[in-house]
Amino acid sequence: MKNKLAANQPLSIGDYLILKIAQYGVSHVFGVPGDYILSFYSKLAGSSLKVINTCDEQGAGFAADAYARLNGLGVVCVTYNAGGLKLVNSTAQAYAEKVPVLVVSGAPGWVERQKFPLLHHKVKEYDDQLKIFEHITVASASIRDAEEAFSEINRVIECILSQKRPGFIELPRDMVNVVPKNQSTPVSATKTLIVAPEYLDSATSKALEVINCANQPVIISGVEVARYGLEDSVLEFAKKANIPIVSTFLGKSSVAESDPFYLGIYAGIVADDNVRQYVESSDCVILIGVLLTDIDLGSNTSKLDLDKLLTINADNCVINNQTFSVGLELLSKLKKMPLVSHDRSLAPAYLVDRTPKFEAKEQKITAKRLFEAIGDFLDKDSILLADIGDAVCGCLEVPTKGTRHFLSPSYYSSLGFSIPAILGVQAKHPELCPIVVVGDGAFQMTGNELSTVIRNHMNAVVIVLNNSGFGTERPMIDGEFNDVASWNYHKLPLIFNGGQGVLVKTERELVEAYEKTKCYAGVSILEVVLDQSDISPQLRRLCAHFLSKTV
Amino acid sequence: MKNKLAANQPLSIGDYLILKIAQYGVSHVFGVPGDYILSFYSKLAGSSLKVINTCDEQGAGFAADAYARLNGLGVVCVTYNAGGLKLVNSTAQAYAEKVPVLVVSGAPGWVERQKFPLLHHKVKEYDDQLKIFEHITVASASIRDAEEAFSEINRVIECILSQKRPGFIELPRDMVNVVPKNQSTPVSATKTLIVAPEYLDSATSKALEVINCANQPVIISGVEVARYGLEDSVLEFAKKANIPIVSTFLGKSSVAESDPFYLGIYAGIVADDNVRQYVESSDCVILIGVLLTDIDLGSNTSKLDLDKLLTINADNCVINNQTFSVGLELLSKLKKMPLVSHDRSLAPAYLVDRTPKFEAKEQKITAKRLFEAIGDFLDKDSILLADIGDAVCGCLEVPTKGTRHFLSPSYYSSLGFSIPAILGVQAKHPELCPIVVVGDGAFQMTGNELSTVIRNHMNAVVIVLNNSGFGTERPMIDGEFNDVASWNYHKLPLIFNGGQGVLVKTERELVEAYEKTKCYAGVSILEVVLDQSDISPQLRRLCAHFLSKTV
Repeated sequence: MKNKLAANQPLSIGDYLILKIAQYGVSHVFGVPGDYILSFYSKLAGSSLKVINTCDEQGAGFAADAYARLNGLGVVCVTYNAGGLKLVNSTAQAYAEKVPVLVVSGAPGWVERQKFPLLHHKVKEYDDQLKIFEHITVASASIRDAEEAFSEINRVIECILSQKRPGFIELPRDMVNVVPKNQSTPVSATKTLIVAPEYLDSATSKALEVINCANQPVIISGVEVARYGLEDSVLEFAKKANIPIVSTFLGKSSVAESDPFYLGIYAGIVADDNVRQYVESSDCVILIGVLLTDIDLGSNTSKLDLDKLLTINADNCVINNQTFSVGLELLSKLKKMPLVSHDRSLAPAYLVDRTPKFEAKEQKITAKRLFEAIGDFLDKDSILLADIGDAVCGCLEVPTKGTRHFLSPSYYSSLGFSIPAILGVQAKHPELCPIVVVGDGAFQMTGNELSTVIRNHMNAVVIVLNNSGFGTERPMIDGEFNDVASWNYHKLPLIFNGGQGVLVKTERELVEAYEKTKCYAGVSILEVVLDQSDISPQLRRLCAHFLSKTV
Repeated sequence: MKNKLAANQPLSIGDYLILKIAQYGVSHVFGVPGDYILSFYSKLAGSSLKVINTCDEQGAGFAADAYARLNGLGVVCVTYNAGGLKLVNSTAQAYAEKVPVLVVSGAPGWVERQKFPLLHHKVKEYDDQLKIFEHITVASASIRDAEEAFSEINRVIECILSQKRPGFIELPRDMVNVVPKNQSTPVSATKTLIVAPEYLDSATSKALEVINCANQPVIISGVEVARYGLEDSVLEFAKKANIPIVSTFLGKSSVAESDPFYLGIYAGIVADDNVRQYVESSDCVILIGVLLTDIDLGSNTSKLDLDKLLTINADNCVINNQTFSVGLELLSKLKKMPLVSHDRSLAPAYLVDRTPKFEAKEQKITAKRLFEAIGDFLDKDSILLADIGDAVCGCLEVPTKGTRHFLSPSYYSSLGFSIPAILGVQAKHPELCPIVVVGDGAFQMTGNELSTVIRNHMNAVVIVLNNSGFGTERPMIDGEFNDVASWNYHKLPLIFNGGQGVLVKTERELVEAYEKTKCYAGVSILEVVLDQSDISPQLRRLCAHFLSKTV
């Protein structure tokens, strides 16, 4: 295709889709082939894009999601229905957590549909897949008219990028090689909403007044800060006004956790109590890019006074309970204004600065000590991937060392994200080493993709919490249904023809095993055996809270 | 709950759902728990139903599908969205292949939805999951009004059973323990369509005339014969009129393949050429319960003359190109009529009767020889489960020994069905030993569920075709994307703490390995190494056909 471009040869629809994907900075596409998408796979193979084949489509969906969280766009490419409908869950997650993922699916050709009413992979009607994806995307298209194909592709990708949510393109197999007559790259079909300057001015002066008058303002940095690349803006604003920053759970590492302005995670009673008290006693809580989810509100244990919130997010801003139709541009404007420098001397010290360095003892490893150790393991070249369950609860207060050095779908909370996420992370950042924390239940869902990681010569340290079941569910309602099958996780290198595995039962073994990973290029599996009832301090606090309320 | 019934105590909505499931002959429910469904899981644990926890929801979906194919109803039970949306593909498959599966999903309570706009697992709106399932089910409900709950549950289950397609019930967690005031079991809300006797009479006499006048009639038995339990009816009809029977691919084993009236599979040029010639030269092809899918038509290589078809299926019947609004009841009526006894002396002998017994040689095993050997392995206590790819192509003409002793989603063709299907098969028929034939690509999708099989002390012989990739795609368009990761499948017992594994490279090793499975209670994995380009005779015929057309 490079040759076609160089020679100014006309592009087919498949060529154009690949061109646009590459133009938006995507270098890797994830997926599983199937007959309806084979001709597009063949085109991909001849392009500059690298295809990473996963074991299952679910893995490809999560890999593309992780890639998108870091890159700003991720692409997953599969066959019709039997491939695409396996991506409904991962796409729903991308929608919920504002992740810009493009799903490309093959489909039966338009001509064969006319000839044969029941082609394999069909459900009820040929457009079922398209209709299902309409529920969980911000834009979707099934390419039918060759002359409109280029603008349809542009429309879907532009919606994804502007709204930071997934989109869907179905490419019937008889359209892949069609060359539209009109080859001009169409002008953007998406109307960019321009905020009227007077609205922005009015919101800015109102916000400025509220912030400057505040005695103890605090910033809560949320997920949109990472999605819209506003990490530096938030820090700049905070430093100019001398306001400390906390982060939500979903927004963790949207500001560098090593920055002196950072206090820790605010998540009601689940996270550090000093942070909670400081935020909840603030007279001006500036929420930037925050989704007020139950998880981010510490399973709804937060006590935020609505009158004291100043909300800046992508959809609108709320100042003194008044809603303004302006978005995150308010932040850029605000940081140029004459901000008062506040007193932040009463802000609590960062939890980690109060925690002694981890010293391994000759004792059985516990969840609490494990997460302390992981905090010590991380350096500026590590990226922490936490799966759902106590893995993510315990990682809540593990300090990371850079922006976007933490990934977890902590709101939508689909188990099984972390292993396939390695693929997305290493494709985008081969220089970063993923440290994965995953429960046994989650691992059993998508652990097969560790073979994809090994196959692609990628690196990762995978810490499997083997506590024989769904540890977060046991304190709610327990029963045999919370047990999972017994696996020897550390022996998986025997199956996958690569990697190393270690069984860890004590603190000393943990530290020794981690040391071994440092000089090892590849995948290391640390199977950490924990008591069935052993949970992280964060989960323990939550349980104690709900228990005290029911007694 | 048994006590409640005995004591005539009022039932909660959760109790009633369990009662109905059990009443329809379901003994096992498949699923993965999550917080929104935990209280229902707790009820299940106290009921007569056994819950089989799978590694991933996808596995539960396929297990319930397999159970439903044998039992007439299957149930899968999961949490909201992060669980349910993983079932979209398996439910779509059940829709396409007419499998009566009930999907039960938890959901946030109605009260908490009002209080908190963003509860975890939510996508966009709280009813997204319900709306998505509406596309792929024949009935769906989200239980809101306690007084209507019982009749809603009845309505969904009755639609599933009458249409043999999936249905969906969402049970918000604050409804599980609600006890409706009106406890009376409501009268069926579903109107049963009664066919007017004159329509049926008219269709019957027309059909009788056509069949009796035919010189060389032949019956094609399809998937609905198995779904509606008409296996005996078809045989009875065939024997009365002395008409030989062939089966479609999806209808394989809907008539006992060991019956003398059975000729083999009709699938265009893909299956036995003698069968093809006999069917295509017939002057009266009686299709019973057949979906005319591309796969069943041998990838559209069949040459059936529409004027010579007599179609009897669940939706309607077509006789001499005239459509009658009668369903499968035509078959019952027809077999009581004065049918002429036809001459079937020209029908070809069953392929298997022409094939010599498999004698293992000291040579490398090939796909062709492997499927011949599998044919010899099967006895009346075996049930053959074929995954998609060359596994199912090669099994097409492997003779099974009983009705419904073959399962494969050969039309919708979702890879990864066969391993979780073991759970459904063994739950329903612990006396039958599943012989599973699965390609490496399909195995990597859902092979994790082999640990669920082991955990539940079930039996199976799993034959993994290790040909390093997607063998059916290579003849279409090949590339690196058709390769799969390298696994040592036969070593999986080391991971799953159970089962035995053997690496098989020669015919002798295959037969010896199979002998070892006979005295082994549990899971045996036979990893059969095949050349990358080695394919079954059935797939080879298809490739040759399409190649001859493109040359």
